[in-house]
Amino acid sequence: MPVTGRIVIDDIRPRASEPGFPAKAVIGEAVPVRAVIFKDGHDVLAARVQLYAEGRSAPESVAALATAANDLWTGTIVADRVGRHQLVVQAWTDRHASWKKRVLAKLDAGQDLSVEVEEGIELLARSVRDAAGVPRPEVEQAAAALADVTLDPVERLRPALTRQVADALAGPDGAPDLTVAPPKPLWVDRERALVGAWYELFPRSYGGFKGTEERVVQIGQLAFDVVYLPPIHPIGVTHRKGRDNTLGAGPDDPGSPWAIGAADGGHTAIDAGLGSLEDFVHLRETVEANGMELALDYALQCSPDHPWVHEHPEWFHHRPDGSIAYAENPPKRYQDIYPLNFWPARDEDRVALWRACRDILEHWIGLGVRLYRVDNPHTKPFAFWEWLIPSVQSRHPDVVFLAEAFTRPRVMEKLAEVGFSQSYTYFTWRTERDGEEGLWAYMEELTEGRAADFSRPNFWPNTPDILSGPLRNGSPAAFALRFLLAATLSPSYGVYSGYELYENEPASETNEEYLHSEKYEIRHRDFDRPGTLAPLMASVNRIRRSHPALQRLRNLHLLATDNPEIFAYAKVSDDGTDALIVAVTLDPLGVQESMVHLDLAALGLPGDRPFPVVDLLSGERFAWSGPAAFVRLEPWWRVGHIFDLRSEAPNRPPVTAP
Amino acid sequence: MPVTGRIVIDDIRPRASEPGFPAKAVIGEAVPVRAVIFKDGHDVLAARVQLYAEGRSAPESVAALATAANDLWTGTIVADRVGRHQLVVQAWTDRHASWKKRVLAKLDAGQDLSVEVEEGIELLARSVRDAAGVPRPEVEQAAAALADVTLDPVERLRPALTRQVADALAGPDGAPDLTVAPPKPLWVDRERALVGAWYELFPRSYGGFKGTEERVVQIGQLAFDVVYLPPIHPIGVTHRKGRDNTLGAGPDDPGSPWAIGAADGGHTAIDAGLGSLEDFVHLRETVEANGMELALDYALQCSPDHPWVHEHPEWFHHRPDGSIAYAENPPKRYQDIYPLNFWPARDEDRVALWRACRDILEHWIGLGVRLYRVDNPHTKPFAFWEWLIPSVQSRHPDVVFLAEAFTRPRVMEKLAEVGFSQSYTYFTWRTERDGEEGLWAYMEELTEGRAADFSRPNFWPNTPDILSGPLRNGSPAAFALRFLLAATLSPSYGVYSGYELYENEPASETNEEYLHSEKYEIRHRDFDRPGTLAPLMASVNRIRRSHPALQRLRNLHLLATDNPEIFAYAKVSDDGTDALIVAVTLDPLGVQESMVHLDLAALGLPGDRPFPVVDLLSGERFAWSGPAAFVRLEPWWRVGHIFDLRSEAPNRPPVTAP
Repeated sequence: MPVTGRIVIDDIRPRASEPGFPAKAVIGEAVPVRAVIFKDGHDVLAARVQLYAEGRSAPESVAALATAANDLWTGTIVADRVGRHQLVVQAWTDRHASWKKRVLAKLDAGQDLSVEVEEGIELLARSVRDAAGVPRPEVEQAAAALADVTLDPVERLRPALTRQVADALAGPDGAPDLTVAPPKPLWVDRERALVGAWYELFPRSYGGFKGTEERVVQIGQLAFDVVYLPPIHPIGVTHRKGRDNTLGAGPDDPGSPWAIGAADGGHTAIDAGLGSLEDFVHLRETVEANGMELALDYALQCSPDHPWVHEHPEWFHHRPDGSIAYAENPPKRYQDIYPLNFWPARDEDRVALWRACRDILEHWIGLGVRLYRVDNPHTKPFAFWEWLIPSVQSRHPDVVFLAEAFTRPRVMEKLAEVGFSQSYTYFTWRTERDGEEGLWAYMEELTEGRAADFSRPNFWPNTPDILSGPLRNGSPAAFALRFLLAATLSPSYGVYSGYELYENEPASETNEEYLHSEKYEIRHRDFDRPGTLAPLMASVNRIRRSHPALQRLRNLHLLATDNPEIFAYAKVSDDGTDALIVAVTLDPLGVQESMVHLDLAALGLPGDRPFPVVDLLSGERFAWSGPAAFVRLEPWWRVGHIFDLRSEAPNRPPVTAP
Repeated sequence: MPVTGRIVIDDIRPRASEPGFPAKAVIGEAVPVRAVIFKDGHDVLAARVQLYAEGRSAPESVAALATAANDLWTGTIVADRVGRHQLVVQAWTDRHASWKKRVLAKLDAGQDLSVEVEEGIELLARSVRDAAGVPRPEVEQAAAALADVTLDPVERLRPALTRQVADALAGPDGAPDLTVAPPKPLWVDRERALVGAWYELFPRSYGGFKGTEERVVQIGQLAFDVVYLPPIHPIGVTHRKGRDNTLGAGPDDPGSPWAIGAADGGHTAIDAGLGSLEDFVHLRETVEANGMELALDYALQCSPDHPWVHEHPEWFHHRPDGSIAYAENPPKRYQDIYPLNFWPARDEDRVALWRACRDILEHWIGLGVRLYRVDNPHTKPFAFWEWLIPSVQSRHPDVVFLAEAFTRPRVMEKLAEVGFSQSYTYFTWRTERDGEEGLWAYMEELTEGRAADFSRPNFWPNTPDILSGPLRNGSPAAFALRFLLAATLSPSYGVYSGYELYENEPASETNEEYLHSEKYEIRHRDFDRPGTLAPLMASVNRIRRSHPALQRLRNLHLLATDNPEIFAYAKVSDDGTDALIVAVTLDPLGVQESMVHLDLAALGLPGDRPFPVVDLLSGERFAWSGPAAFVRLEPWWRVGHIFDLRSEAPNRPPVTAP
């Protein structure tokens, strides 16, 4: 049975859906904390939240909670250290405020106050005993003043308690009903777990690691934050897939990088065609020298030629004839891949396999890689991730895991709950503003829904597997607007190489993959040709870096527009000094106009006079006034605005024109 | 850290808001159970819920769970034993269905099935090992049939697995991934905790216990289920309140029954003016002989003359001058009452007080009283109730506690969570259909809201303290419609004596109490005069007893009406054999008409032909057809209908006309 304290403290957030799992935050993030707090009777309560880094006895930070109505108390707390934390909410009777409330009510009713004066003196005396910091003369002076005010009005009572004494009485020290709620776990990541612009490329299309370095310099100029590589390991030859996912690869077909493992080695080896270990390390250093970070793919499956197939047949599924089963989701077949059996019959085999999977990560972590995009995590047991991720992060708390999952909502939620730092999302298929499947409802779900305290989105308009919606045979405007949405709605987003070149040919009318998918062949691209999306990418990425408002998710405020083809939203930084409004057309083909409706007070804007705004994309300046602004978007040259509402504030970053 | 099993089982309901507290049900109630259940990969799952009575190793009942979409699994379970239970949800891979799914997908795609046939034979062989009940010849025959079907269509595969073998393979026995979720506590009450028509009276107004017996016979004829008495203990004389809550009682003023305790004794004594202990027991027996049950008031406070004041001054609050503090909520003062200090400085004093409070209940339980209306529970610590109620119910699981609380929503919820069987509600102030404070939203909150799994309402149109809304100077129609709403919306409801006489004079324009409140004086009433509400009460109470649809809360389906002055709803019994539609006017003054819209399929009604309905209040028969019915209510002779939708079903109770 639970044990309720003297004061009830319930429904503490942030929290996961199931008890015991941690909520998530990043360093420096203003984390909203709330709890339902009340007590029997009529006393005035006070409450606070303390944040403890695991293993430390002194709190890392403390914040007061305040209540507006319905027993809901709120505040914000900020962590400044990576790792596991505990949120501890405490509540107690504010003896000073309770006493004052009684005194004021009786004063108003003209009732006798002699008992309350006696109580006030006793409270003061107790504060002398409790709070060593209160100098005795001040207390005696206050007590003397109190004794004089028997029937005086409130104005004479108020100074009777000095600020210092009042503070002592208002605080938790010595409060006989101080109640401490059971700690709620909070995992604190470095900021990259929440914020980052990802760029995915296949290094073999650039001639391997060495050739990729040149491309990395260009990507750095586009102000991306992460360069992510699909698997870089030896690729199997047995049942290797040919171009366009065909059976029977030709001798020059490179195969899918996700068919991991060959005679040269498995998940810790490097495909010889890409370069050496030294080349890899040099590439990582080049990525970092260009202001970015390298991310690798963590894909727990094997080609039939992977060394584990021979060394550890017990880690695979076996058919009745003894052969190892390739991956199937009937009628689909993946003959070039053996799935691992994460729950073999013998428990020591399970333990050995799980440890081997962790060793792979330890290998690459040892080589300086701290970001992992995890392939198909929802096809492995949740219990495995629940063990693996904390096990790795307890030793390397700066490691970030991105879940490549586009599966059912509760499965997505569970992956976040058991430890994934962030996840791919349904953004790719959210192309309208309204309706159950619209962007509005989806952004509300992500920012306020049941998983909002522990899941973080990473918005990808495309991936090597997914060419969807308006991008299929789409115009450059379609690519521009989907990019702008992804990069400004979510603090983490990513694109797969070729996006800036408007690559738009689907594999077929019903297939979401690309024609001539780079998964099965080498692609050569001309990134230097005129008219690409690169300038917009560079502008938006630079704006993202210089505007903290775009580096948070929960600060999203959706704005009403009269035209459903225009999607508009505001973001305000935690400290209020940065405030942006983004308006994007959802129509890549025609002109759209709309009024955008603003909550002036919430955005810190004046209601009684015009105010200046600057479009950070075009450099244009506008004077707005009142609670609505007009927007006209012609997609062939402008798919959206990013309006800076604090353009005249001191120390603002300069306007960035493309 | 939590430990996720091989299969994820999350979000199990019913449950309380905070972990560890039990959800609630009554014997025979169809309790909806739900859980989110899923596993990595593509296997077909099966799930069930088991209900264990505490201390028993065999489940009391078992129900299969089924899934429709979004990984949500649902079913219903029924308890047939009072006391603490555990709900255990289990899930496993249905090996037969998973195998069949693979076979069907491959058959559709024309793929080779030889591996699946081998797997089928292996599955059968395993079922022989696992399920001792499967006779070997049948398995061998099935295996032989399987071996033949390599490329045959699905119709030939199906009989290959006999039903018996398929059941064995579909079940949890031997399933290697059988996952058992942590048990969720469920407290099962007797039915009175959910269902009952209460009648409150002050026995002193009928000449004490003996005189009350005559009135009890009349109340029994009105088919009420519970007779509830305010405190029956000696009343203090110090600061006794006079008529109309005045200070300075006259010598003939009886005082408030809630000012408990005098020289004659405290909470276990009986006020001599009411009668002897024998008289009390005889009254209880008379109540029971008339088909009802007696409820007492449990009011934990003392008059200044209560024996505890002298015997246990440490159980009270003391002022700085050493005197005991009377009850105050400044500027309100209750000079005739000393509140108890439930958390004295010394813990042994707290323990002694809490035990003494429990001993009061043990005393009256020993005298056969199993229903308690608890006065002002929200002014006592929640931790006290969390200890007291399970402590009493572990010895007397048939004891029911009704919380007299009209306080803030989260406080109401907590009282239910820590153990109260049912509670007074905001019904008294919900008089409109629409809006945040309307009946529609309130009924949705009570039936589906966050506390719906563990809180039960008891609707009181009036109490000795509350004369509210349309009842203030209200017409007989106002009393009739509020009664009809209370008695048909909630399986538990109650009225305070005088309601049937339309007593409608408020204490003042702003005061919700009655003029000449019976709390402070003796009232004499003429229940035999013509034109009272008694006939309607008797009709409705008899309909409640004979129609199980009215004995449940969660079966409420609100029905759309075109006119917001008519509130309509359907109730269908757990087994579907009883179905009613109630339509009530909210306007006591004028004629109101409306179409009432029906979901024919949900109500088990035909869409292609007329169907008969009977108004159980008037006996009138109607033929309805289609998804809307017309209703016209003239409040001076008819405030509502109770339509029986199953009037032609066999074994229906006869139509009850007033």
